[in-house]
Amino acid sequence: MSAEDFRRYGHQVVDWIADYLSHPEQYPVFSRNLPGQLKKAIPPQAPERGEAMEALLDDLDRIVVPGVTHWNHPGFFAYFATSGSAPGILGEMLSAAFNVNAMLWRTSPSATELEEVTLEWLRQLMGLPESFDGVIYDTASISTLCAIAAAREAAGLNIREMGVEAAGARLRMYASEHVHSSVDKSAITLGIGQTSLRKIPSDSEYRMKTAALEDAIKEDRSNGWHPFCVVATTGTTSSTSIDPVSPIADICEREGLWLHVDAAYGGFAAVVPEMRWVLEGAERGDSLVVNPHKGLFVPLDLSILYCRRMNVLRNAFSLVPEYLRTGESEEVKNFMDYGPQLGRRFRALKFWFVMRYFGAEGLRSRVRHQINLAREFAEWVDQSDKFERMAPVPFSLVCFRARPQGHFTEDGLNAINERLMNEVNARGKVYMSHTKLSGKLTLRFAIGNIRTTREHVRMAWDELNQVLEGIKIDD
Amino acid sequence: MSAEDFRRYGHQVVDWIADYLSHPEQYPVFSRNLPGQLKKAIPPQAPERGEAMEALLDDLDRIVVPGVTHWNHPGFFAYFATSGSAPGILGEMLSAAFNVNAMLWRTSPSATELEEVTLEWLRQLMGLPESFDGVIYDTASISTLCAIAAAREAAGLNIREMGVEAAGARLRMYASEHVHSSVDKSAITLGIGQTSLRKIPSDSEYRMKTAALEDAIKEDRSNGWHPFCVVATTGTTSSTSIDPVSPIADICEREGLWLHVDAAYGGFAAVVPEMRWVLEGAERGDSLVVNPHKGLFVPLDLSILYCRRMNVLRNAFSLVPEYLRTGESEEVKNFMDYGPQLGRRFRALKFWFVMRYFGAEGLRSRVRHQINLAREFAEWVDQSDKFERMAPVPFSLVCFRARPQGHFTEDGLNAINERLMNEVNARGKVYMSHTKLSGKLTLRFAIGNIRTTREHVRMAWDELNQVLEGIKIDD
Repeated sequence: MSAEDFRRYGHQVVDWIADYLSHPEQYPVFSRNLPGQLKKAIPPQAPERGEAMEALLDDLDRIVVPGVTHWNHPGFFAYFATSGSAPGILGEMLSAAFNVNAMLWRTSPSATELEEVTLEWLRQLMGLPESFDGVIYDTASISTLCAIAAAREAAGLNIREMGVEAAGARLRMYASEHVHSSVDKSAITLGIGQTSLRKIPSDSEYRMKTAALEDAIKEDRSNGWHPFCVVATTGTTSSTSIDPVSPIADICEREGLWLHVDAAYGGFAAVVPEMRWVLEGAERGDSLVVNPHKGLFVPLDLSILYCRRMNVLRNAFSLVPEYLRTGESEEVKNFMDYGPQLGRRFRALKFWFVMRYFGAEGLRSRVRHQINLAREFAEWVDQSDKFERMAPVPFSLVCFRARPQGHFTEDGLNAINERLMNEVNARGKVYMSHTKLSGKLTLRFAIGNIRTTREHVRMAWDELNQVLEGIKIDD
Repeated sequence: MSAEDFRRYGHQVVDWIADYLSHPEQYPVFSRNLPGQLKKAIPPQAPERGEAMEALLDDLDRIVVPGVTHWNHPGFFAYFATSGSAPGILGEMLSAAFNVNAMLWRTSPSATELEEVTLEWLRQLMGLPESFDGVIYDTASISTLCAIAAAREAAGLNIREMGVEAAGARLRMYASEHVHSSVDKSAITLGIGQTSLRKIPSDSEYRMKTAALEDAIKEDRSNGWHPFCVVATTGTTSSTSIDPVSPIADICEREGLWLHVDAAYGGFAAVVPEMRWVLEGAERGDSLVVNPHKGLFVPLDLSILYCRRMNVLRNAFSLVPEYLRTGESEEVKNFMDYGPQLGRRFRALKFWFVMRYFGAEGLRSRVRHQINLAREFAEWVDQSDKFERMAPVPFSLVCFRARPQGHFTEDGLNAINERLMNEVNARGKVYMSHTKLSGKLTLRFAIGNIRTTREHVRMAWDELNQVLEGIKIDD
């Protein structure tokens, strides 16, 4: 494509994005496509001859957009609502243009050093001590996998070389029953097996019971297991509960276990001074994951693993073939040494843009605003006689359910809430997801979109009440 | 940022990219930054207040660009030279704007179904049989990791649940001594240990010796190892040699081993009909990785794992927590089920743009052109009395070294070639990297940039000859 054509189509795409992001509300938030609908609209094979860019851009509106679930919609309250932002998109455009592989320092010094700069900036904003260094990965799933791989390496069983079998140790790690599925997946992937992850019961507020953790470790040791790691979560996925990290750190120190803090969701709230408490004890962790692509307005993907023992992480993964050997490796960081992936995008650029464009103050005020909106929504739930809150609200997620007046079995309430969720989602103005807490189907109202205002939260509350009204009449 | 501001800055960024991509030759291809140079130019902490977008864009030229090693430069011949393209960048811009997480079908039907469409299109273009289905990951490192995890799962030892230790089997996998380091890393990560990867000697053209593979399996079985997987490479990293996949497939069938074909580099050449032979036997593989971000003009990152046993891959990884359970999971593909990563970018969009904009014919002619350029360069090497070729040239990489007239030890030749490479790279017009073949330092001339023409290849050849002339005078 000529420079002139790129300029022309690039401007068109920018205009399209500007229009799209200025009113994502024109679309139903949750795609109404049926399974297979997009595939049916597209030829079964690639075109033989190249097509005009105009045709592609036409198909964007005609084929792609109807099948998009709009994470940019201010009515998106499902999962953890995440949010890109304009400076993040601009940074991503430039990364795609540079198209460097940040595997070695020399394959793009800017990518490596901007990664170090942004890691340092966020470390300070979150109030983590200087002993934490870090690395950027794609996702929290990989950050967690790498943290547990480092924990496995730290166990000193020569697993890197000989494998888990030859180590002859039944490795055991611990996490609350509310831990994210990526920790299970890490246990599976790393070859230590899903049973190596022992889930510790939680209290009434879904926080790991430390006494139960101590008992489990003791019991396991006497049964021949080899404990090596504990994952404490700051902001669990179901309810954003916060494990008691300080007492867990005490146990880890006493027992000689690697402490990984999963703050993928909760960590970024620490940029708000009055929320700094959520990371209490995390400074004693060996590693900590936090996802700027979740709550700091950075487009997917960008996850950070902070680590106090980078040499262990390096020992877990570093492997330099001849064709990647360089003269400067003592003076610089070659980030490929710290993970399984050789290919690494220039992810730091978008994050640098976001931190500079918003400033520390801008990030703080936006995160704070979302937490305040969640608290207000939680108050409405608390004051309603048709809904009940299901968990505390430390961050910007509210767990609740409809609890209409009258006698209902738990199964009956589950059915009502599932129907409520599906009907609200089908109306297209709001998208919510669910979890189960103590067996009860619980609606999750996650505020994380940069465009979500108090009016959208209010609108969602009205939707919930209106739809619930309809369900009650039907029943 | 307001829509108007995004429009304005977006146009500026597009204009910047258009200018940059129309003459990347204005920069030295290999960054001249010193270690730490960029970090010194940036404040040690994030700004308290947001900055103007103008300031960020100024710093792009002032701070970022000098530290960029320009993979877009037509003189970039290092590693595997990879290449984005204008339609790929436009697609990436839109993906960053949509910012969907393609974990579940419902979290964006378009992302999931376009993934299926592009996988199918490329499968046809490469001539792989219909029995291959696939999934898009970030990198070949992850594609390979997942393939070997599936192989491990297929071994039927219940490793997913109980881990490698409880399986009680000393797992063994095989690959040529020229296999990519990501296979070693996979063995490490998956907990089967680096020693579980037995490297098989190669012949004089760096292809796995199948008789040695057979012997190794036999020997291992008699020594209590549990063979489970062979990795055959179509386009090794050092020299792009092609393992004899058909005979290896025979062995795998006979021995009941998973055959993974690493065609991350070599696979895309099969879009050229007369190159289809490079995948001979690959149709019998259980899995195959190919990287559109390497040679099909798709910006980083986009790697594909094709697999004939998707259910095994799924069994290796699928784990659905309550908060991700959906009603339509029987009717649709939820790609999060096929790998370790829950977060998944909308990668298919840029690939769809690239395939449509260039068309099958456009991809073919560009790949063919690069292979022809490499053959021409190889001829120059062959005809020169100062250089010698070090390996066959099936793709668009030429392995060669300077071999000046006179008597030199191998160490002496290694020193001359290292100096030659470093001095050529320092001049800024050409960037090459090296490997070692049979202990001999070998220069790798990799043609993969979409802007590289015959003139750039000629210029590189002139640089090499000029610089070598200078070295000879000095010595």
